[in-house]
Amino acid sequence: MTKSPLLAAIAALALPLSAHAQTMDPAALRDAALSDDYAWDITEGLTTEIGPRLAGTEAEARARAWAVTKLTALGFKNVRIEPYQMPVWVRGEETAEVVSPFPQKLAVTALGNSGATPSKGLVGEIVYFPSLEALQAAPDGSLRGKIAFVSHAMHATQDGSSYGYYGAVRRTGPAIAAKKGAAAMLIRSVGTDYHRNPHAGGTNFPDGTAAIPAAALSLPDAEQLERILKRGKPVRLKLLITARQTGMKQSGNVIGEVPGSDPAAGIVVVGGHLDSWDLGTGAIDDASGVAITAAAAKRIMNAGTPRRTIRVVWFGAEEVGVFGGRAYGEAHKGDNHVLAAESDFGADRIWKFAVNLPDSAKAVGDRLATALFPLGISRGSEKAGDGADVGPLFKQGVAAVDLSQSGLRYFDLHHTPDDTLDKIDPAQLRQNVAAWTAMLAIVANAPEVIGRVTPAR
Amino acid sequence: MTKSPLLAAIAALALPLSAHAQTMDPAALRDAALSDDYAWDITEGLTTEIGPRLAGTEAEARARAWAVTKLTALGFKNVRIEPYQMPVWVRGEETAEVVSPFPQKLAVTALGNSGATPSKGLVGEIVYFPSLEALQAAPDGSLRGKIAFVSHAMHATQDGSSYGYYGAVRRTGPAIAAKKGAAAMLIRSVGTDYHRNPHAGGTNFPDGTAAIPAAALSLPDAEQLERILKRGKPVRLKLLITARQTGMKQSGNVIGEVPGSDPAAGIVVVGGHLDSWDLGTGAIDDASGVAITAAAAKRIMNAGTPRRTIRVVWFGAEEVGVFGGRAYGEAHKGDNHVLAAESDFGADRIWKFAVNLPDSAKAVGDRLATALFPLGISRGSEKAGDGADVGPLFKQGVAAVDLSQSGLRYFDLHHTPDDTLDKIDPAQLRQNVAAWTAMLAIVANAPEVIGRVTPAR
Repeated sequence: MTKSPLLAAIAALALPLSAHAQTMDPAALRDAALSDDYAWDITEGLTTEIGPRLAGTEAEARARAWAVTKLTALGFKNVRIEPYQMPVWVRGEETAEVVSPFPQKLAVTALGNSGATPSKGLVGEIVYFPSLEALQAAPDGSLRGKIAFVSHAMHATQDGSSYGYYGAVRRTGPAIAAKKGAAAMLIRSVGTDYHRNPHAGGTNFPDGTAAIPAAALSLPDAEQLERILKRGKPVRLKLLITARQTGMKQSGNVIGEVPGSDPAAGIVVVGGHLDSWDLGTGAIDDASGVAITAAAAKRIMNAGTPRRTIRVVWFGAEEVGVFGGRAYGEAHKGDNHVLAAESDFGADRIWKFAVNLPDSAKAVGDRLATALFPLGISRGSEKAGDGADVGPLFKQGVAAVDLSQSGLRYFDLHHTPDDTLDKIDPAQLRQNVAAWTAMLAIVANAPEVIGRVTPAR
Repeated sequence: MTKSPLLAAIAALALPLSAHAQTMDPAALRDAALSDDYAWDITEGLTTEIGPRLAGTEAEARARAWAVTKLTALGFKNVRIEPYQMPVWVRGEETAEVVSPFPQKLAVTALGNSGATPSKGLVGEIVYFPSLEALQAAPDGSLRGKIAFVSHAMHATQDGSSYGYYGAVRRTGPAIAAKKGAAAMLIRSVGTDYHRNPHAGGTNFPDGTAAIPAAALSLPDAEQLERILKRGKPVRLKLLITARQTGMKQSGNVIGEVPGSDPAAGIVVVGGHLDSWDLGTGAIDDASGVAITAAAAKRIMNAGTPRRTIRVVWFGAEEVGVFGGRAYGEAHKGDNHVLAAESDFGADRIWKFAVNLPDSAKAVGDRLATALFPLGISRGSEKAGDGADVGPLFKQGVAAVDLSQSGLRYFDLHHTPDDTLDKIDPAQLRQNVAAWTAMLAIVANAPEVIGRVTPAR
């Protein structure tokens, strides 16, 4: 590899590290990780032997047991499940069909927390809105007995930022429609692919707003419904959704550690989430995230004892409301977390990183830049702080590193039945592990004090 | 366009045609067709206003009514439905789940003519075969109570030829498994995409072989099942299929004509099939085929009166056993068909053509080559004769032209829920119409006698 001499030269310019930490040369560990098999092994195992693992269900419990076995076998210490209670919503039957003027079935999936229709379904006239803003502008009561349909088109972005804006129709649209009297709500999937696999995902009804049936159409179906509406005749649709809330159940986070040599230096938390939506096997969301972070920690473990403890957390119940992340943040408020980072955006190549570090540890960011650029990863100028599950830690002022995967095809797959192992590119997965391994080698061994920061958001 | 002077030069070298036919210059009609909207209009209309149209069902009947209205509005003459009776199979519920060792649902769809499971499903151990030959080699009785699973991987080919070999597992596998005592049969979909949308398609049980439940897994699901099997533990799967035969029902072909000026010169038959599988809206299979052929005939109609009658046939019930094609061939045995051509391979660009013409009309093939090469279509050396619905005419010795579309993504979509309008590329659709228009301008106006030929197969 032509880059080795350059890296050697850069290493010679780096801060003097302790003899201990020098057994963990970030560049050497990074390059070795490009042959990693741990992450594939975890991703393949979890998606094959467990498959879908909806939060709070028996499948998620099996995933926790699987995780304990796997992390223990890999040599992690203090492997444990930290349980918590959460409300559990489950999917049932879900069908949609145009009754008139052009009878035909449409592919639909209920949104998390959707209410149910009557057991024989409900029939209503479609009222079309081109945007969430248009729905918001509808007069109160104007949707009584109707099915609201918001169809606006999200486009892929490398940083995934379009999910914030376009995702609002899923997160808040059904509650808005409910307040205006709608019998049900349909959205165009928050996604970018043209397959008949609608995108699931959570919606929320605030206290006092009864949950109406709320579901997503696949993009081909949403565009079909738009074409039908454009013929100008009233469009009546029959919707059947038997989803339901099943009450409070147990979920849990699974934790394993690579103990550090210097307990006073604090803990570096890395992880992803163990639960998945129920339609696919949760390969990109987020088997690969738990796999990448654990594989990187394992590679550090293999190299020796880091200065700081690396704590791997496989969070439960992220998809349906970040119950695991909040439970962890609450339970471990008193821990000396010095840095947190999360992988929850698939396994395509990391293209950018960012940090949120105190001034005292500014040099850590520079060493990350040096270690990551050979992987095609450039430094972003924004403050780091991505991640739902480690969000509560960031709010507590814990320093952050973001390793940002390309989102260009993420929303082709996100929350759909198509989120399966075949979508993971082993070469890109290894690039992720290499980046995370280099990051951990630097952060867990940094001689600097890493104190609190002002959160990015 | 730089090609115009060349085409003009070629036109000057062509056979002298009658003054009448010269109003229909193939090159001019071809180039004008590159702006065609008729084909899109038909494809969009049929897939939107009818949607799925399984043979022999009420939806196919609505499609026939739609077709009569459309062909009449376009100015075709002698528009009519020619009915026939056929046995009708319909889909019901269809689910599959691994019971042990790793419980999870798999995406499955019943094959046409599949038998049903008991109403609560059946549970059986999976017996895996890497190929149809391996299944054939299994000892009689060795599959009693088991679910046979054949999983071999088809790859995309431009000419679609891989469908012949790999498709055999779908067409004949279930009957072979039934004879060996299997309780049910699963196949890896005969397809090339990695979406959780299994490929439907017909299978056949010869007289005396009771239909067992037979279904296709999507590729991600087939590979998941293979991975589960590779763990070496017995794999038990629960299958529920409530498909059923509903007896004899009416279907029909829809016919419209562009009458020719010389009744003695015979009839040119072109068309595609009106029915579709029930999972998608049948855009590439075969709304685009009926659209392309009718659009080309319409463009000839607009240009004047051709020498020969062009008969557009939108065949019924192709997917489930070529009932429409056989009914047409039988009913019109006495007609003076001089040439037949069918479009039933999507709407991606035509890349090759071939002919089967009598020696007396050899020059027609040469004129086709001249007219088609500017569209990127080269001449194949094989004898033409593709097409299930016009197959009975070919068997009667009718001359043939094949206009071959690229099959490189056809089996990503074929027989799946994903066969929807968004998969049609308007520019490639127009290239198809241009080729068909040029072909019809040449063939319908050819001064040569076009007599019988030896069929290609």
